[in-house]
Amino acid sequence: MTVFEYGGRLLIVDCGVLFPEDDQPGVDLILPDFRAIEDRLDDIDGLLLTHGHEDHIGAVPFLLRLRPDLPIYGSKFTNALLAAKAKEHRQRPNLIQVREGERRDVGAFNLEFFAVNHSIPDALAVAIRTPAGVVLHTGDIKLDQLPLDGRLTDLAGFSRLGDEGVDLFCVDSTNAEVPGFVTPERDIGSVIDDVVRKVDQRVIVACFASHVHRVQQVLDAAQRHGRRIAFVGRSMVRNMGIAADLGLLNVPDGLLVDLDQASTLPESKVLFVSTGSQGEPLSALSRMARGEHRQISIREGDTVVLSSSMVPGNETAVFGVVNGLTRLGANVVHQGNAKVHVSGHASAGELLYLYNAVRPSNVMPVHGEWKHLRANGELAVRTGVAPENVVIAEDGVVVDLIDGKASRTGRVEVGHVYVDGLSVGDVGESTLSDRLVLGEGGFIAINVAVDSSTGRAVSSPTVAGRGFSDDPKALAAVVPLVEMELARTEAEGITDTHRIAQAVRRVVGRWVADTYRRRPMIVPTVIPV
Amino acid sequence: MTVFEYGGRLLIVDCGVLFPEDDQPGVDLILPDFRAIEDRLDDIDGLLLTHGHEDHIGAVPFLLRLRPDLPIYGSKFTNALLAAKAKEHRQRPNLIQVREGERRDVGAFNLEFFAVNHSIPDALAVAIRTPAGVVLHTGDIKLDQLPLDGRLTDLAGFSRLGDEGVDLFCVDSTNAEVPGFVTPERDIGSVIDDVVRKVDQRVIVACFASHVHRVQQVLDAAQRHGRRIAFVGRSMVRNMGIAADLGLLNVPDGLLVDLDQASTLPESKVLFVSTGSQGEPLSALSRMARGEHRQISIREGDTVVLSSSMVPGNETAVFGVVNGLTRLGANVVHQGNAKVHVSGHASAGELLYLYNAVRPSNVMPVHGEWKHLRANGELAVRTGVAPENVVIAEDGVVVDLIDGKASRTGRVEVGHVYVDGLSVGDVGESTLSDRLVLGEGGFIAINVAVDSSTGRAVSSPTVAGRGFSDDPKALAAVVPLVEMELARTEAEGITDTHRIAQAVRRVVGRWVADTYRRRPMIVPTVIPV
Repeated sequence: MTVFEYGGRLLIVDCGVLFPEDDQPGVDLILPDFRAIEDRLDDIDGLLLTHGHEDHIGAVPFLLRLRPDLPIYGSKFTNALLAAKAKEHRQRPNLIQVREGERRDVGAFNLEFFAVNHSIPDALAVAIRTPAGVVLHTGDIKLDQLPLDGRLTDLAGFSRLGDEGVDLFCVDSTNAEVPGFVTPERDIGSVIDDVVRKVDQRVIVACFASHVHRVQQVLDAAQRHGRRIAFVGRSMVRNMGIAADLGLLNVPDGLLVDLDQASTLPESKVLFVSTGSQGEPLSALSRMARGEHRQISIREGDTVVLSSSMVPGNETAVFGVVNGLTRLGANVVHQGNAKVHVSGHASAGELLYLYNAVRPSNVMPVHGEWKHLRANGELAVRTGVAPENVVIAEDGVVVDLIDGKASRTGRVEVGHVYVDGLSVGDVGESTLSDRLVLGEGGFIAINVAVDSSTGRAVSSPTVAGRGFSDDPKALAAVVPLVEMELARTEAEGITDTHRIAQAVRRVVGRWVADTYRRRPMIVPTVIPV
Repeated sequence: MTVFEYGGRLLIVDCGVLFPEDDQPGVDLILPDFRAIEDRLDDIDGLLLTHGHEDHIGAVPFLLRLRPDLPIYGSKFTNALLAAKAKEHRQRPNLIQVREGERRDVGAFNLEFFAVNHSIPDALAVAIRTPAGVVLHTGDIKLDQLPLDGRLTDLAGFSRLGDEGVDLFCVDSTNAEVPGFVTPERDIGSVIDDVVRKVDQRVIVACFASHVHRVQQVLDAAQRHGRRIAFVGRSMVRNMGIAADLGLLNVPDGLLVDLDQASTLPESKVLFVSTGSQGEPLSALSRMARGEHRQISIREGDTVVLSSSMVPGNETAVFGVVNGLTRLGANVVHQGNAKVHVSGHASAGELLYLYNAVRPSNVMPVHGEWKHLRANGELAVRTGVAPENVVIAEDGVVVDLIDGKASRTGRVEVGHVYVDGLSVGDVGESTLSDRLVLGEGGFIAINVAVDSSTGRAVSSPTVAGRGFSDDPKALAAVVPLVEMELARTEAEGITDTHRIAQAVRRVVGRWVADTYRRRPMIVPTVIPV
């Protein structure tokens, strides 16, 4: 989420989610931190969505909770995906459709939209004009010169804007470290066609549920080789329905069957298009790999195509799925053994074209980790941008554009806002740090009731470990240890339950460190009676 | 660990560890399951170690606890690494040094050793002859045709053995899915030399602490460009000391300095060789990336070379280190942007050479996940091995070699044996599953003392959550809820503390699911007083 401000008015570009990493256990989603704008909700003139991926629209329902009537601008497909998401949240957002070539005022901001090519249809870049200068934000972008839908990234438009003068250029950094150019999406089509042509059993292709052009190529291959198509997975069914309704996906009559029909067809006459290409444990493909899918059980000779990248952090999960499928007898075709995927983000070679078209005064690389931002900034410098005009900014950094010069001028407080189940924000760093301790070593709970006037134990202490050991005798030594400590605290006249609990924690913690060299959480509870 | 049996006698080949994955939290190491041999320890004629990597020798100290006098056969460097490891366990193993070209009886087994090339010096393949037939086990292998030490994989020896007839060929499968050939290790040298030549600030190269030839090339580059070398990280210092002592690493006089000396040298005159290439959080490199290393603080313009692969599952950790280093201003050279690493395992092209040299009757792919084993088996078939003579076997499968035909004939019970801290085996699946629940959602503990004769609560219930929420009021509704439930159980005349606890767990579990849609562990304790 990027917030632009001019004359006290705000324009937001994108509002996506992050997915949690290993050190964020139990978290479902990570939201942008709205604190910097939550007192200024009425200053927002609009939210512009560059495209419909989760990392760009996923947090919109949470922003709408704060400002339900927020005007949201996006292309046809982007708005349709957002509308479907909002419906699940029982929201009816105020959606305004825009398209490439169009120019319109949104409050204090004059916006112009440019077609860009990405791994989802109908993506836009946006030029933001204010008296302070012209900003061009690419959104997610690549420069496929042979796009499946003929909708090229509007390099000519960028050049015209460059002639006018771009004061700040915000550029997608994802693949800035990757040399060269992304292979055209079209080339994947012939590889998939090859796979489908050669096999005479079932074919299952997994890819991102929003990758309409990839799915189109799978549909075309199926059509050519006399196979019917069944979509598998809720988001695949939903998104492809939307894409077909909007004319973005061409589904020949009679090609589509539902899952139940599909299972009655001969194996050589069906192709499944499924979710689960990232190894998500609850996805259709993962369930197939575990032999737990209700309708599709993988058999010797089936072919599974993972037509997707591996998002960093998902490798183990994806390898697990591949192993499961292979074990059941499937041939698995993936990025590692065939050219069945191309990235949606411009490589370094394409980024150079962008810089040379736009010739910006200032550059702020966006959409990437620090190493990507920096690599992107270096590309800008190689095309002639002055190094001091490259702004590397992370979440929370305030960049001012004054008199044609962009620079970091401050910082607003931003943190990770976690969604866990129904609630937003109540899981924070302290809860996560407890979860990490519990997940590594479990806990040992010690409970004892004491007479609050004398400090004498009125029950035998109970000791229970969870996530500590499978051995039922593992903690047998703890009860006498605690009894001894309670005798000591009583003898010292200690009656404060908090102090008694501290003493118990200390002796048990020391014992477990010495005996097991482990660090479970020690949870003493002293109940006064 | 592979166990061979003939005439009631056992020969073990390798005894390594696995490293835990995400669903094995808190586990330090995973050992082979010794149950199948623990009643037959005296039947073991020997343990042969093919090379000194952890996944081949790491579990030896745990096997030695069962049979301290076990005769262990290995090459000079392998034995030296094992001796160092055993010393940390205060063990003095019975080590017997063997070398390529040698043939010797080990109890019922006649062994012949062959030089093989891998990412560690002094690796061996072994032919095992018994009256039942000839087995050839490659260990970990590749076929670098220009090895740095001139020690080629003995393809000629394999061919001679093939002339004699190999009944079962056990072959490294790691890279069976990768087409073509591994680039010679030597070619990495010039890339590293290039990096060192071009920069005039500090250079830090991280690689595996046992990769002597990689380190040799770094040393050579440093020497050529007038830089002194400092080793960073305990295992790097130890292993390179051993390698130098054995004449496997050539360290010119005066090249080596210690860390304290290194920090006094000009930046252009020093090169650090460090551990931590897998992003291990406690390693030297990770500490540098976090700015926490005592002696080395990364500065703008430093160059860090990650001369290593990313072991699957470590990607996020490695990217974290790269981002940390980049943020501090370092230029990071890694596999993704320069040819600074080659694999230690034969690609498909090399495996074909092996099959054609050995011409085995039966093949059992080893060292890989299911997908790798299968891909390797397919390569065997393409060289003429009959498909029915390819045995894909996982841990625990028993393969018989009878009358020249290998086949799966049974299964022994094997599981994962976890080392956590000081103890082995007490952490099992039930503990891990508790850790996963606790790590995802934390726990809510409810404690109450009841009169054991009436079932009446004699204290107000205490409720505490850990890893549940940062909000101190998150569980405020639970106390009245539990009080109501206790009133009900008392009214129903329930005095059994176990039944009361069950009732409390039920109401709290239902409440938390409804209110938060989360599933923390619910831990009720009812203390009878």
